[in-house]
Amino acid sequence: MTIDFWFEFGSPYSYLSSMRLPALAHRAGIQINWRPFLLGPIFQQQGWHNSPFLVYPAKGAYMWTDMAREAGKYHLPFRRPGDFPRRAILPSRIALANGNARWIGDFVQAVMQLNFVHDRDIDNEAAMREILLQLLPAASAEDILQSAQGDAVKQRLRAQTATAQDLGIFGAPSFIVGDELFWGNDRLEDALALAHSHTYIGETL
Amino acid sequence: MTIDFWFEFGSPYSYLSSMRLPALAHRAGIQINWRPFLLGPIFQQQGWHNSPFLVYPAKGAYMWTDMAREAGKYHLPFRRPGDFPRRAILPSRIALANGNARWIGDFVQAVMQLNFVHDRDIDNEAAMREILLQLLPAASAEDILQSAQGDAVKQRLRAQTATAQDLGIFGAPSFIVGDELFWGNDRLEDALALAHSHTYIGETL
Repeated sequence: MTIDFWFEFGSPYSYLSSMRLPALAHRAGIQINWRPFLLGPIFQQQGWHNSPFLVYPAKGAYMWTDMAREAGKYHLPFRRPGDFPRRAILPSRIALANGNARWIGDFVQAVMQLNFVHDRDIDNEAAMREILLQLLPAASAEDILQSAQGDAVKQRLRAQTATAQDLGIFGAPSFIVGDELFWGNDRLEDALALAHSHTYIGETL
Repeated sequence: MTIDFWFEFGSPYSYLSSMRLPALAHRAGIQINWRPFLLGPIFQQQGWHNSPFLVYPAKGAYMWTDMAREAGKYHLPFRRPGDFPRRAILPSRIALANGNARWIGDFVQAVMQLNFVHDRDIDNEAAMREILLQLLPAASAEDILQSAQGDAVKQRLRAQTATAQDLGIFGAPSFIVGDELFWGNDRLEDALALAHSHTYIGETL
């Protein structure tokens, strides 16, 4: 069985799930389908021209407190980004175009850490090159950077975000197992448990 | 140590916490401060003229799926109310005026069950009388019904909801332990753990 992991590089709770999911899925024998998308168009459809954490200040103030506590709960480093929400179009295009690469999980985690641990801009070639060079030979890194900025990938990212809307996704992270949607890092274990039960039933038939 | 439990009788996740908190707090030796309030004015301040689960249909559709799963997780009966969100002014006034009564927990749970298990209207005298008569002698029940509808209690409920806003509360259920705010049934255990740690430190000093 597989779990579809819908995430946004600018989303704090997507950071928590990105750091937690790979090890949990690996030990359970569950495959992750990485599904980067952009929250901007989703929020705009709901009438917000920015993150709800900025549109609703009380909710935003609470979120940072909650994020610090949650990061502590999971023993994850966390620094509140100086720029929020960070634009993440280039990393999203790279992740989308390389969803099946053996290094996709490491790439996603490195981008998330750049944003939520090192408080650095992520939507630029230099930062992405730095990460890719830690994962790949230089020539491959350059190929990936170039093709991620081609029209085909741009179109795919727009289509991916439209698909998220069609699936009823309204925030990130979201998980889909079979036809069941789970929203939020708090539901990661529930989504995995469902994927696990599907796997188990499949194997005993 | 104590835990302030801010809840709304019309709020689905407040139902889950109302059913779970009393037993968990009791076994931990933590006192509950029952804090009924109205979400309507809180939502209006955020620009919503109804529950966000109605304002944002994707979020609402997901919530009912999630509620059914969560109720199952906690082994709680649950029926989606035919009328949502149910007005709950009278039960809120009764709960507010009797926050220190020995039967307050039973009353809150009975009202929540009327709404989220039996799918019945809760904002009327007949329903409240029915519940109070199961907890109290008839004369006391009538006294409580009358005094809850007096001006003093009406003012207190307005003030209580204003206090919620001042505390940074933006949804329900919310928990406050010391000066820390926790939002959502998902944070009930975290709030209790903090109250427990305060108790323990206090006792060893």
